[in-house]
Amino acid sequence: MNQDYIKADNWSIIEEGFDAESVKSSESLFSIGNGAMGQRANFEESYTGETFQGSYIAGIYYPDKTKVGWWKNGYPKYFAKVLNAPNWIGIDIEINDENLDLNMCTAVKNFRRELNMKEGWYNRSFEATLKNGTEIAVNVRRFLSMNLDEVGVINYEITAINKDTKIVFKPYVDAGVTNEDTNWEEKFWEILDVKRTGNEAFVTAQTFKTHFKVTTFMQNTILVNGKNGNISPSNIKTGTDKIQFSYDVIIAKGQKSSIQKIGGYTVSLNHENTLSGAENAIKNALEKGYDNLLEEQIKAWAKIWEMSDITIDGDVKAQQGIRFNIFQLNQTYSGKDSRLNIGPKGFTGEKYGGSTYWDTEAYCIPFYMATKDQQVARNLLTYRYNQLDKAIENAEINLGFKNGAALYPMVTMNGEECHNEWEITHEEIHRNGAIAFAIFNYHRFTGDYSYIPEKGLEVLIGIARFWHQRANFSKDKNQFVILGVTGPNEYENNVNNNFYTNYIAKWCIDYTHDQIQKVLLEYPSDHKRIIEKVKLSDAELQDWKKVSGNMYFPKSEELGIYLQQDGFLDKELVLVKDLDKSQRPINQKWSWDRILRSPYIKQADVLQGFYFFEDHFSTEELKRNFEFYEAFTVHESSLSPCVHSIQAAKLDKMDMAYTFYLRTSRLDLDDYNKEVEEGCHITSMAGTWMSIVEGFGGMRVKDNTLHFSPKIPKEWTGYSFKINFRNQILKVSVNHEETLFELEGTKNLTVFVNGEPVSVKPKTLVTLK
Amino acid sequence: MNQDYIKADNWSIIEEGFDAESVKSSESLFSIGNGAMGQRANFEESYTGETFQGSYIAGIYYPDKTKVGWWKNGYPKYFAKVLNAPNWIGIDIEINDENLDLNMCTAVKNFRRELNMKEGWYNRSFEATLKNGTEIAVNVRRFLSMNLDEVGVINYEITAINKDTKIVFKPYVDAGVTNEDTNWEEKFWEILDVKRTGNEAFVTAQTFKTHFKVTTFMQNTILVNGKNGNISPSNIKTGTDKIQFSYDVIIAKGQKSSIQKIGGYTVSLNHENTLSGAENAIKNALEKGYDNLLEEQIKAWAKIWEMSDITIDGDVKAQQGIRFNIFQLNQTYSGKDSRLNIGPKGFTGEKYGGSTYWDTEAYCIPFYMATKDQQVARNLLTYRYNQLDKAIENAEINLGFKNGAALYPMVTMNGEECHNEWEITHEEIHRNGAIAFAIFNYHRFTGDYSYIPEKGLEVLIGIARFWHQRANFSKDKNQFVILGVTGPNEYENNVNNNFYTNYIAKWCIDYTHDQIQKVLLEYPSDHKRIIEKVKLSDAELQDWKKVSGNMYFPKSEELGIYLQQDGFLDKELVLVKDLDKSQRPINQKWSWDRILRSPYIKQADVLQGFYFFEDHFSTEELKRNFEFYEAFTVHESSLSPCVHSIQAAKLDKMDMAYTFYLRTSRLDLDDYNKEVEEGCHITSMAGTWMSIVEGFGGMRVKDNTLHFSPKIPKEWTGYSFKINFRNQILKVSVNHEETLFELEGTKNLTVFVNGEPVSVKPKTLVTLK
Repeated sequence: MNQDYIKADNWSIIEEGFDAESVKSSESLFSIGNGAMGQRANFEESYTGETFQGSYIAGIYYPDKTKVGWWKNGYPKYFAKVLNAPNWIGIDIEINDENLDLNMCTAVKNFRRELNMKEGWYNRSFEATLKNGTEIAVNVRRFLSMNLDEVGVINYEITAINKDTKIVFKPYVDAGVTNEDTNWEEKFWEILDVKRTGNEAFVTAQTFKTHFKVTTFMQNTILVNGKNGNISPSNIKTGTDKIQFSYDVIIAKGQKSSIQKIGGYTVSLNHENTLSGAENAIKNALEKGYDNLLEEQIKAWAKIWEMSDITIDGDVKAQQGIRFNIFQLNQTYSGKDSRLNIGPKGFTGEKYGGSTYWDTEAYCIPFYMATKDQQVARNLLTYRYNQLDKAIENAEINLGFKNGAALYPMVTMNGEECHNEWEITHEEIHRNGAIAFAIFNYHRFTGDYSYIPEKGLEVLIGIARFWHQRANFSKDKNQFVILGVTGPNEYENNVNNNFYTNYIAKWCIDYTHDQIQKVLLEYPSDHKRIIEKVKLSDAELQDWKKVSGNMYFPKSEELGIYLQQDGFLDKELVLVKDLDKSQRPINQKWSWDRILRSPYIKQADVLQGFYFFEDHFSTEELKRNFEFYEAFTVHESSLSPCVHSIQAAKLDKMDMAYTFYLRTSRLDLDDYNKEVEEGCHITSMAGTWMSIVEGFGGMRVKDNTLHFSPKIPKEWTGYSFKINFRNQILKVSVNHEETLFELEGTKNLTVFVNGEPVSVKPKTLVTLK
Repeated sequence: MNQDYIKADNWSIIEEGFDAESVKSSESLFSIGNGAMGQRANFEESYTGETFQGSYIAGIYYPDKTKVGWWKNGYPKYFAKVLNAPNWIGIDIEINDENLDLNMCTAVKNFRRELNMKEGWYNRSFEATLKNGTEIAVNVRRFLSMNLDEVGVINYEITAINKDTKIVFKPYVDAGVTNEDTNWEEKFWEILDVKRTGNEAFVTAQTFKTHFKVTTFMQNTILVNGKNGNISPSNIKTGTDKIQFSYDVIIAKGQKSSIQKIGGYTVSLNHENTLSGAENAIKNALEKGYDNLLEEQIKAWAKIWEMSDITIDGDVKAQQGIRFNIFQLNQTYSGKDSRLNIGPKGFTGEKYGGSTYWDTEAYCIPFYMATKDQQVARNLLTYRYNQLDKAIENAEINLGFKNGAALYPMVTMNGEECHNEWEITHEEIHRNGAIAFAIFNYHRFTGDYSYIPEKGLEVLIGIARFWHQRANFSKDKNQFVILGVTGPNEYENNVNNNFYTNYIAKWCIDYTHDQIQKVLLEYPSDHKRIIEKVKLSDAELQDWKKVSGNMYFPKSEELGIYLQQDGFLDKELVLVKDLDKSQRPINQKWSWDRILRSPYIKQADVLQGFYFFEDHFSTEELKRNFEFYEAFTVHESSLSPCVHSIQAAKLDKMDMAYTFYLRTSRLDLDDYNKEVEEGCHITSMAGTWMSIVEGFGGMRVKDNTLHFSPKIPKEWTGYSFKINFRNQILKVSVNHEETLFELEGTKNLTVFVNGEPVSVKPKTLVTLK
């Protein structure tokens, strides 16, 4: 694939020219979603070339029976697969009795895709010459309504170029779909009902095992030269899992005809009767009509950008990159529904399965907190609260913990663990820490403490209990240790005393302890309710503090650094820069044992701890640890560059910060890892946002106050971002000479810039030289 | 299953009474084999109850496509499955037009199985009442000829008890068999040809992928009242993968009829034309006839026992146990063919796949060395020599080593690794050490040095190179370390500086270095040939010595012990005796992470090092290490109790030694692990033998001389064993008063008993009080 096949543009993702080799990659990059559903940029018409078909519905999954080489106790029974949903976008096209298929045409000219991020639509156009000699021009626009989130719209327009042309539009709904990613090649969907009336059709299916019921629907209108042709289907093919209409149109050379297809899903998560839900959805969409729906779409996206846009001046690729990241995050998760979460591939692919990883808490929440109403972040916290019982069950039944200790799953859809590698599933336990940290972070940023007495404290207690039990006393060290873990750096497994894990474990216990005291004082009835429910005694609390007060942290006095784990300094410490390039990426070139005993780091580990707990360490300490560990980091996780970018910026290593920024922001657009065809890296996109706001902008919240230390890469002339800070929108603009603040809100705000207080009044530009 | 369902008997394994619940366990325990083939004790007649059908041919396997949850680089493409071979033992029986099936009979009386270990045959007898009211008595004898090792014989005799009876004998050969253990439920056999002439039938099939061709054959003779009835088949059913004859006989009440079925396999490993090979095999067997074949069988086993029997007086269960172990080892591996090895389940089941583990070198070779001609052990060494190229390939291609470093596979059939858990496949590298140790041990015991210049040295160099490259210099420790390994205790994974691994690594390098010097002096032309072939320079040799001379061994000065690995003392050191019984076996009760961070040991680890290198340590050191580690050992590997039994005996902990002995010797007969239905634990049976000879007998070889320090458990009145020491057979008998030596041979032998020299003359009993 040509690395530059995506055209640089401030607001759109553009591909020009048809290249069969990039179809699968483009299907990922041009994906659209509206939080409730989404789909890869598959062609509407049939295509016999290489393609990866994917349509997805939020919250709908299939528990695929676990596949292992060698079973280990404690493995979950299933892996929740992101489910390829029934296809509603399909429209087979016949042109003068020949099937339109870009893989079979004698010529395809002026092929162009555009994903207009500003307005939230996807457009594809091309001119094709069929084998029968007919030349046509096609323009297809598709969007998934942000307002009516069960509805998508396609306008598929054909112009006859060289002769009078008979067109048959053959739109369909098809539930006979399969997953690329299945463990046992099983079918995931059971068809319940196929129904049609007039120009509408409905296929109702349910997932095996999980029994999610989904009605997939379509409604078709045929236009000739822009006017409703009132054309009825000439033929209807009803199969067991598919229904397809045929509409015949004959147009003269130079004329146009189009099909406007409304389609989408209604699901049993939201409807008692999905079929009548679907009928309503069509009715609502038809009442508005195509043009209104499009106009509403543009408005909805304008509102999103109003709050979350980041501008970068003087660097189109950087600008395009950050907008692509922000756009995808908004396509993936709208924050309306606390049953949903942010899958690592969003609606762009199947890989990794599940929907929820520690990515949500460690990387995504800051983005949603600062660019959305605070309820959105609260919903993400509530998601974990609602799954607390399952996390306790997981710890007790699978792993032998007791007394309400909770271990949240590594990968989940419904709160149950579904990953099955012992070194991850059972040992990458630091995820529990990020979930507690997110509660702290939510309160720190929003100032909303109410979540803690209402819900958060129970989660914190379950997590603190886990750490208390998971640590053990080492007689040899006379301290508490945590043995056999995998840290954020998944290139080490089953290590002892991973600094990050030990540190966050101690922090979780101390923070929980403090919150129990605070809730006792400020919310005594909540305190009573919770303590009675979880049966927490003073004796247990004292036991916790014994562990947190005497936790062991491996370090090297000589190097002045914390050690990633006990054995780190025994490794053969060859720097990444001295590693032969032919050996990289090591995860493709080296056997697992070799990776494990190497010093190479997949993503921030000790540095993740410095990122979360920056205030606990001096800048000198950060510098020493950053310089030591960054030199061994291969950044083979999409989550790696952002943390390093933020810390490099803080340490005034601006060139490094900029390089990391580019890598995180254009990871998918430039396909750094040669895998974008599998889908985009959604959760790391929030890290890109952090790289600018926390990295270059230096934003922090301390003592209920915003702090900034603005810096700017020399490649840019300026940049700006917005922060929803406690229900006021602060716009921060930075250029090489000055920093500007503008506040949309009603209350004066004091912020600190490089440690100095600055007063910002509503609607009054503040300029600092 | 009733633990006492096997009757105590000095020479036989006996089951009395029909219990459908124990059919699968008995199928394992009553298995027969002759080194070239073997089979579970499946019924000849059809049986609709629970059964596990299994017939196996040595050296024939199927490369089953690897199944993993999550692929890791370096995993092998296949797992060599022990292959359920075509069935030649089957004889359907019709009694007065009703099919005989013990699961359907109205009564089964006097059911009895006997595996006569002294004579090498298996007998089953019962009386059955069929639904049609016919009562018959059945006696079936079966054996696999030790002399004609492609041939097995069945004599299936029926007596009419209550009425004149029409019998139809329906013997068959069936290649339409499947494995219980398959990754993808694929078929393993492709049928090539089905053929018959007269009373003979042949099915030729080949394995998919590996293309081993096998002709499975049968020849049938019908006897009436003991005389050949010259009866021809009344019916012949030829299917695509099965051929079945019907022989009709009518006998009067009280009379007998039997079928004598000759059957077996000829394989392309040994025959250009397996079909004519099969015809010859039948001819040879018929020339001898049933009675002669049986007589030869008894003689062959008498010869085996003459050399390898161990007697135990005053403890029938212990006697039965050790004979069962010796019998199974002889059934599994005859030592004739250096292409074969000793599968962990022998011919008794499919589990574990592959045929060769480090068990062979660490546990089996001492048994075969001391009870067989030394050529047998040499064949086992040669097996690895023949696979050296594959071990080098494995290290280079899968794991990134270079310059001829060899890593032998964890599990193999043909030299290629087939196991796929990174913590085992890639990290349980100590197996390489045992392969080198076996070369040393062979020379130490047999005095035959010729193997080393001929073959062994190349193996040693490949192994030494591996260790040299696998260790790395720790700047922090200023010593060489070996990171990321799994030791013999598989309840720890990816640990650093496993004492056993580091120790044997150092030893391998030093031993290889010494052998290179010795071969240079004593076999200069071999030295030249080998050094040129492997391109070994003096500089490389010096590099080796830098590693072996500065290897790090973790230890605790305070406890006076070596540490199993760097982090061992950080564990929560609760003794096994203080562990709640409900938690055991931990491999069934605990999740893998919990096992890994526990101090519990599956099998000897540090103590395995003390076992191999006893002379390197003082008895005081052994005592401290034994007492420390045994207290954490859960013995959940069949290979664990024997080493502990030997060391307990050495340390005069005779009650402990006896307990371990019983556990190892009757592991399968008493089904300690509740899994005997899957097959017997063949390789650990050699450990049982070591428990007596090296444990109670205290046998060691030092400086070309046998040493003993005889001890006897208080439960026994006496025991004896024989040793083939350098082509003379020494019998050692021990009772509570005295030790006796008898020598079959021609040369005087000086042995040491408790450190004192004793001269033993041929055929002269020496009695020591």
